[in-house]
Amino acid sequence: MSQKRVAIGIDLGGTNAKVGVVDGDGQVVAFDSGATNPERGPQVLVAEVVMLIDRVLEGVGLTRADVIGVGLGTPGPLSARTGTVIKAANLPGWVQVPLRMLFARALDLPVVLDNDANVAAYGEWWVGAGREWGDLVLLTLGTGVGGGVVLDGKVVQGHFENAAELGHMIVMPGGLPCNCGQRGCLEQYASAAAVARRVMSAIKDGETSSLAEAVARGEELDALAVEKAARAGDALSLSIWDEACYYLAVACVNIQHAFNPACVVLGGGMAGAGEFLLERVRGHFEGLKWHLHRDYPEILPAQLGYRAGVIGAAGYAWREQA
Amino acid sequence: MSQKRVAIGIDLGGTNAKVGVVDGDGQVVAFDSGATNPERGPQVLVAEVVMLIDRVLEGVGLTRADVIGVGLGTPGPLSARTGTVIKAANLPGWVQVPLRMLFARALDLPVVLDNDANVAAYGEWWVGAGREWGDLVLLTLGTGVGGGVVLDGKVVQGHFENAAELGHMIVMPGGLPCNCGQRGCLEQYASAAAVARRVMSAIKDGETSSLAEAVARGEELDALAVEKAARAGDALSLSIWDEACYYLAVACVNIQHAFNPACVVLGGGMAGAGEFLLERVRGHFEGLKWHLHRDYPEILPAQLGYRAGVIGAAGYAWREQA
Repeated sequence: MSQKRVAIGIDLGGTNAKVGVVDGDGQVVAFDSGATNPERGPQVLVAEVVMLIDRVLEGVGLTRADVIGVGLGTPGPLSARTGTVIKAANLPGWVQVPLRMLFARALDLPVVLDNDANVAAYGEWWVGAGREWGDLVLLTLGTGVGGGVVLDGKVVQGHFENAAELGHMIVMPGGLPCNCGQRGCLEQYASAAAVARRVMSAIKDGETSSLAEAVARGEELDALAVEKAARAGDALSLSIWDEACYYLAVACVNIQHAFNPACVVLGGGMAGAGEFLLERVRGHFEGLKWHLHRDYPEILPAQLGYRAGVIGAAGYAWREQA
Repeated sequence: MSQKRVAIGIDLGGTNAKVGVVDGDGQVVAFDSGATNPERGPQVLVAEVVMLIDRVLEGVGLTRADVIGVGLGTPGPLSARTGTVIKAANLPGWVQVPLRMLFARALDLPVVLDNDANVAAYGEWWVGAGREWGDLVLLTLGTGVGGGVVLDGKVVQGHFENAAELGHMIVMPGGLPCNCGQRGCLEQYASAAAVARRVMSAIKDGETSSLAEAVARGEELDALAVEKAARAGDALSLSIWDEACYYLAVACVNIQHAFNPACVVLGGGMAGAGEFLLERVRGHFEGLKWHLHRDYPEILPAQLGYRAGVIGAAGYAWREQA
């Protein structure tokens, strides 16, 4: 029988669940992911994920008896306090689902829950880009821009449990309209989806670009296509890419003056561009920042990639033990 | 001999020190202020303030033996951790002054120190506008725009001890230049000094205003003059006043998504305008805010006025006891 003590981290997406078995040092002992069918309801999804967990544990010779607890990251909005998914945009029909209780009952283990950006931020703070610092702010550049803030080792939750919605900071008053009802939100300029959308829209408005032919064929561009075109010298792609970096730098200045963290970490799909993104953000930040104090955060790449969520979620479970 | 236990709060300005004797419920038992001569150096200033403290205590029949500790709010930048004033813009020649130690030695009492906006925020949280809430964000509208953030009863300090410099959030990229080296800082639009400066500058540029005659006479306008002219229907004054309120509302949106506090409290000289300020800020906030969640902070007036600093500073001393 194994003496190994582990936590389970679950990262729940719209069509897919990732499960990690994580030790107390944040090392991933085992990892797997599987398709889920959230449209069949929470009970079915919980059963699917529990089967996945048992399979992953079995693969490394462990059982639920070796597990100290479970952490769960899901898309928001949710209440970490009550363990309830309030309404999930990509979990159709899920309203006020007591997901923590459902998992706790199914597994007979303590479960803790938070939104996906917060658990990823906690993971990066625990064993990733922020592990040498006391605090960090994470921005994830994907469909939207997610945010998570860890100060003194604690995730900032906010009075309404909705802190760190940093993608909806207004970086350009009166700017591009956002689905959220505001104008000029960071995520309208700097999400992977926004970058692709803005290039397609400019091409449809008649701007020349090496991507025009693909758009004319009806192809949906993504941020990677824009990045590639920008690297190859397409002026339109480069200009929109650079503008994304500029507004990320504006956000970094505002994050500096709000939270004054040691570092701002960029993650999510678009951060896969590496220095092609980071160098530009740092360059704009250099031009935008104040001269009063040397209290600038480092702007760093995320380190945990697609496993940030399960590591961070498991970290929540370990933290509950401490 | 008195059984009363009290804390001393000190609010140190450029030419003046306020001292409050504050009980454990945040009630001010005695208060006084006096001129100081910071240009004569820290030792002299400490001696002046200690005399003021002894006089204030004596006036209510107390002695230093009744004092549990001392809290000190001073202009930044400073290090609360080390108790050092790093460099004070309005305390000329003060560089790396170990003010906490100087006061602790002179009074033989425990002393705790933080910047003026942070202690004011703590005061408003403890017994002022935020006393029924777990958290608040304070914006003080004076020469600049100061900020303080209290989450779960703790003042957010930041990795570099420079969090909540909310007056330097960029609310308009590429906007008005700020002394700090950035452009488009909140305090270039919404501080009392900025409102007065902008009206004077517009008048000098030839705009018509009921204040034009005073400016032509060489008078220095202040925010109160602008407020009065705006209330009386001066279009220029009203437009610049309203723009200040608009950018305050942009800041409130960004504060909402960063800290997600229960309330944003407006204090400082310009907040003396009351509803003439608050109503406009709330109106713009209504138009700017998102529709995704009902997680809006209340926008409230500060309640402690010129005594916020001494109450909050004394609150720090009480907190150290707890």
